[in-house]
Amino acid sequence: MAEDLKDLIRCIPDFPKKGVVFRDITTLLKAGPRFIKVVNALSNECEKRRPDVIVAVESRGFVLGGAVSYRLGLPLVPARKPGKLPAKTAKQEYELEYGKDAIEMHVDSIQPGQRVVILDDLLATGGTALAAARLVEKLKGKVVGMLFLIELEFLKGRQRLKDYDVVSLVKYESE
Amino acid sequence: MAEDLKDLIRCIPDFPKKGVVFRDITTLLKAGPRFIKVVNALSNECEKRRPDVIVAVESRGFVLGGAVSYRLGLPLVPARKPGKLPAKTAKQEYELEYGKDAIEMHVDSIQPGQRVVILDDLLATGGTALAAARLVEKLKGKVVGMLFLIELEFLKGRQRLKDYDVVSLVKYESE
Repeated sequence: MAEDLKDLIRCIPDFPKKGVVFRDITTLLKAGPRFIKVVNALSNECEKRRPDVIVAVESRGFVLGGAVSYRLGLPLVPARKPGKLPAKTAKQEYELEYGKDAIEMHVDSIQPGQRVVILDDLLATGGTALAAARLVEKLKGKVVGMLFLIELEFLKGRQRLKDYDVVSLVKYESE
Repeated sequence: MAEDLKDLIRCIPDFPKKGVVFRDITTLLKAGPRFIKVVNALSNECEKRRPDVIVAVESRGFVLGGAVSYRLGLPLVPARKPGKLPAKTAKQEYELEYGKDAIEMHVDSIQPGQRVVILDDLLATGGTALAAARLVEKLKGKVVGMLFLIELEFLKGRQRLKDYDVVSLVKYESE
């Protein structure tokens, strides 16, 4: 599956900045039946962890989250950039290369003790996923897995997320 | 379906600003089997229009787009805020109450002559949907439908989109 998937992911040099190769999944999203296979593979990995809830990270994670949630009939909870969610939220800041960013979830989005899989398209440094996990734990949920379509292994996000069960479908060893 | 759906949509007064009632779909996304029904209903409406491609509008539209694209096995194309898409894009500006905004699509996302359904969670004034339609037409696609989960009828978006086949699952007549 992994090599097959790489054919569908477009590599765009120097985006969003010089020296970075962006892994563009819009080519995969356009692939119809092959997108179905990817969603099925993500859904299988998700299901193994027996979650009660899927947390999808804004905004490419929403595309995958919508499909996996539909496939499994599981509740979907969005983790969003600050100021986007309308009801009462909890917030978690995280460090960027320069400066800080944050994500929010509705405080009533997770019930205490619920098993949660965090889903995003990309594992890079792991900062966003770690913030999402902290947020779930603030709300007394249990993170039973972190699921990514793509992992940039050379950024060592997995190391940062060593307390969690991390799965990715396709791995890049270098830029 | 419509009345049933309203039970799942949370109304939040004074968000994002005073006097506006925000229709919060996070309560629907959490509804598991009922979310499946909504996606099936959207998929049925989508399928009737025999599209080659679904265009989903950032970012709540991505959740629905991912699920409908998965359900129908149809290519999904994201319409995004400026600066987010990594390859060559076309851009369409549109007016906001104060100032302007814009959306972009990859120039290779639509092939000339392709039938396109535009999908978003909310039809408000119709500005974003109209911009998405213009963008599809710039790329020589044919907009064969516009599909929304929610329509705020009192904002008269449908009037603005009168050249298009507009469908929504749940309608609010007033704030």
